[in-house]
Amino acid sequence: MRKVWRLSELVERFGGRAIGEADIRQVAPIERAGIAELTFVTHPRYRRELELTKAAAVILNEALHDATALPRIVCANPAAYFARVVALLNPEPTPRPGIDPSAAVHPTATVPTSAHVGAHVCIGADVAIGEHAIIEAGCVIGDGAALGADIHLYPNVTIYHGCDIGARAILHSGVVIGADGFGLAFEDGRWLKIPQIGRVVIGADVEIGANTTVDRGAMDDTVIGEGVKLDNQIQVGHNVRIGAHTAIAACTGIAGSTTVGRQCRIGGAVRIHGHLTIADGTEISATSVITKSIDVAGVYTGFYPFEAHRDWLKNAAHLRHLNELVKKIYELEKRVDHLQRHSGQK
Amino acid sequence: MRKVWRLSELVERFGGRAIGEADIRQVAPIERAGIAELTFVTHPRYRRELELTKAAAVILNEALHDATALPRIVCANPAAYFARVVALLNPEPTPRPGIDPSAAVHPTATVPTSAHVGAHVCIGADVAIGEHAIIEAGCVIGDGAALGADIHLYPNVTIYHGCDIGARAILHSGVVIGADGFGLAFEDGRWLKIPQIGRVVIGADVEIGANTTVDRGAMDDTVIGEGVKLDNQIQVGHNVRIGAHTAIAACTGIAGSTTVGRQCRIGGAVRIHGHLTIADGTEISATSVITKSIDVAGVYTGFYPFEAHRDWLKNAAHLRHLNELVKKIYELEKRVDHLQRHSGQK
Amino acid sequence: MRKVWRLSELVERFGGRAIGEADIRQVAPIERAGIAELTFVTHPRYRRELELTKAAAVILNEALHDATALPRIVCANPAAYFARVVALLNPEPTPRPGIDPSAAVHPTATVPTSAHVGAHVCIGADVAIGEHAIIEAGCVIGDGAALGADIHLYPNVTIYHGCDIGARAILHSGVVIGADGFGLAFEDGRWLKIPQIGRVVIGADVEIGANTTVDRGAMDDTVIGEGVKLDNQIQVGHNVRIGAHTAIAACTGIAGSTTVGRQCRIGGAVRIHGHLTIADGTEISATSVITKSIDVAGVYTGFYPFEAHRDWLKNAAHLRHLNELVKKIYELEKRVDHLQRHSGQK
Repeated sequence: MRKVWRLSELVERFGGRAIGEADIRQVAPIERAGIAELTFVTHPRYRRELELTKAAAVILNEALHDATALPRIVCANPAAYFARVVALLNPEPTPRPGIDPSAAVHPTATVPTSAHVGAHVCIGADVAIGEHAIIEAGCVIGDGAALGADIHLYPNVTIYHGCDIGARAILHSGVVIGADGFGLAFEDGRWLKIPQIGRVVIGADVEIGANTTVDRGAMDDTVIGEGVKLDNQIQVGHNVRIGAHTAIAACTGIAGSTTVGRQCRIGGAVRIHGHLTIADGTEISATSVITKSIDVAGVYTGFYPFEAHRDWLKNAAHLRHLNELVKKIYELEKRVDHLQRHSGQK
Repeated sequence: MRKVWRLSELVERFGGRAIGEADIRQVAPIERAGIAELTFVTHPRYRRELELTKAAAVILNEALHDATALPRIVCANPAAYFARVVALLNPEPTPRPGIDPSAAVHPTATVPTSAHVGAHVCIGADVAIGEHAIIEAGCVIGDGAALGADIHLYPNVTIYHGCDIGARAILHSGVVIGADGFGLAFEDGRWLKIPQIGRVVIGADVEIGANTTVDRGAMDDTVIGEGVKLDNQIQVGHNVRIGAHTAIAACTGIAGSTTVGRQCRIGGAVRIHGHLTIADGTEISATSVITKSIDVAGVYTGFYPFEAHRDWLKNAAHLRHLNELVKKIYELEKRVDHLQRHSGQK
Repeated sequence: MRKVWRLSELVERFGGRAIGEADIRQVAPIERAGIAELTFVTHPRYRRELELTKAAAVILNEALHDATALPRIVCANPAAYFARVVALLNPEPTPRPGIDPSAAVHPTATVPTSAHVGAHVCIGADVAIGEHAIIEAGCVIGDGAALGADIHLYPNVTIYHGCDIGARAILHSGVVIGADGFGLAFEDGRWLKIPQIGRVVIGADVEIGANTTVDRGAMDDTVIGEGVKLDNQIQVGHNVRIGAHTAIAACTGIAGSTTVGRQCRIGGAVRIHGHLTIADGTEISATSVITKSIDVAGVYTGFYPFEAHRDWLKNAAHLRHLNELVKKIYELEKRVDHLQRHSGQK
């Protein structure tokens, strides 16, 4: 592994232009970056931090290119540029190819010699694993599942039977793909299970955070589009479809049969009801509850703002009487209209 | 496995009456059902889809029995009927009985020869497993736990010591039953753990979704009644009791010592405070926060409706002044009363 | 294990003063405690239960010391006293030291002979485990992680590479420590992953509930202070810092780079936005959404109160028009001012 990179080498590799020169060993946040450390700035509001930083060099955009005298790389998208530099300076160790002797791999499963299968992994019948796949310890892959090339399953991921995960997908620990959707019929005071016979189909370049769950479809499949990024502890109900390159922050839940568009940005702890359609490019603020389809892209929000508890007690109590209050306002309006008419002042 | 069923055979098996005849191989949603596929309709609002469907046959109720000319099964509860047909047409493969050689089973545990114990399962001391139980790879069963007949534990389920799971329960991957409840005492600026010595007791025919957690009781047990259905990522606190045949959708949390009645229907992401009692048959809308006991069954709701972000900014800001606004309304009312009295118009 | 304790023996061990004498075998809740069972009371509101209890003895504070004729222990903090008695009467079985033959332990890992490593555990390269650590079945410890003395990992916990867990920490099943934070850069319609090179550092005496996730830092570390107690299904984003002895109830989410103070008490299902600072000693009511930093300790709240669904429909609909309503009130006020001025009544 290379230990030091020069700014000029980075520019050669990733583009942009270097102003000045510096040796870079690592990246760091702007407020604590020091010797041989590279940082980045995306927004003019960090001008002050930029003046104070002790970084060896900075990545910034054209608008800020002369806001510092430090050695720097000027480029169109400092955050994306930075992502590439972080990856270059911190190459992930690649686990050795091969199947750990403690793994239980069904004889009908296809595991290429380039793949890494960790300790205590269990791979079912007719599973197909792509080249260079990394399946860490304790993962369980159900019968007939297909995992694309270069996927990375962190420890203790569970994939149910028949699910299909695209190339380069990253699934973090505790993820469960393809558990049964919540399909029930009520009869004579009891719930009857409706077997869930769909699958989960996940596109290429998807990342799924720790302990997120994606249920299999009832009859059709649940579909996560290419490039979708799901954070931790997200729940995706059966038959949900999420369009390509949509990003969803932690703890969000999407109820069954909802279709989320492409390139949406959905905040954390958002709740989206079932059977809705969310337009491409929609942004939803964290903690909002979405109860109706959104046809027009835009930013949508809905949650109760916090305040001191004693104030909340006073204010929130009125919500249960809001309808009466509104009636009272309209009534007052009528009475004032009447008064004005009869006082000859209107 | 049978591949084709005639409508008349289904009726012979499950009741109802067949009008016309058809060969059925699979079920499908009404909008894409085709050759040899059976679908169902539960509500008159799907009349249009019913007219357009290319399904081989339809299950419907008496009210809709002549709404199509297709071969059909007429019955009292199409959803329940459909659930049975889906199960018939899609029998789950039964894993072979026996204990995988990689499983770690304590010598004092009782595992019948009819049970399936998958790879890398760990079964503690004095565990009792029922006939035909299926315990998939990576599950860990703590000392002294009891699992009923015909239960199905999907991979990577954890059951803590002493917990009791009823017959035919289905627990999906990542479920944790019997972790310690959140019991703490505060002393000298630090939290002291109160050991949790109760258990979790789960009735027969319960299903629990992926990554749901049910904590053990502090001193008494946490109890999940017969036939309860819990979706994914639900949190059930210590000493909670959930009555029989209640269904709860994903991401709902129930704080400690609350009792939920029988046959309740609780939406997703509901938050129920601790030490409450919820009446039998109560329905709670998704995302509501329940802070008081509910004595009378009915439908209850409480969340902030979403809107365009710019509108929310304007509207929600007033909530912090609602009490002042209400005072202002009452003051205006008094002033208008006064004006009317003195204008002799009342 | 001792089976019976006398009140006088408890007082000798834990302090306080005994009034009367009794044989104690177990603890129980006040309403069902019986022969040889000890209970406790912390608050005068339980006077009635105290009168009715059939417990063998009671722990209570000075203020209540003569509220019962039962044998009793009088002390300053009955809840903390009780916690100690529960632990004394219910000693946790200590699993036998040693490494289960099915565990996969890297040759460069340090595992003391006093530690217990359960079945199917996987311990990576250069991992350091403290004395008397308990690592139950199915846990996976990434390369270079450090686990303090006397820690207890329940089954199926995952620790990513390089993370550091303090002494006496208790991590419940399904916990994931050190998965990648949600760091992304947007470029040409796609998300680019920003590798997360920080760690998670967890202090001594921390307890973390089932299926909780704590993400590794982007560049700096995510830090959980000494004595922090996290309940189940909590999500802690990258670079979050939680101060010592803070307790957080289940299902709460803390977005990236937020700093929570020391000795805070945060309810369940709270949502704290990213990049905020929460003052030491702050209390946040369950289900509140915190969108701004809190500089002054106090109790903060914000959620929509529930009601009968038909009432909510009427009341909540007005929220989308609150701004117009407020304008209408101000307008009415002006009109009434005008009327009063011209009626000569002011």
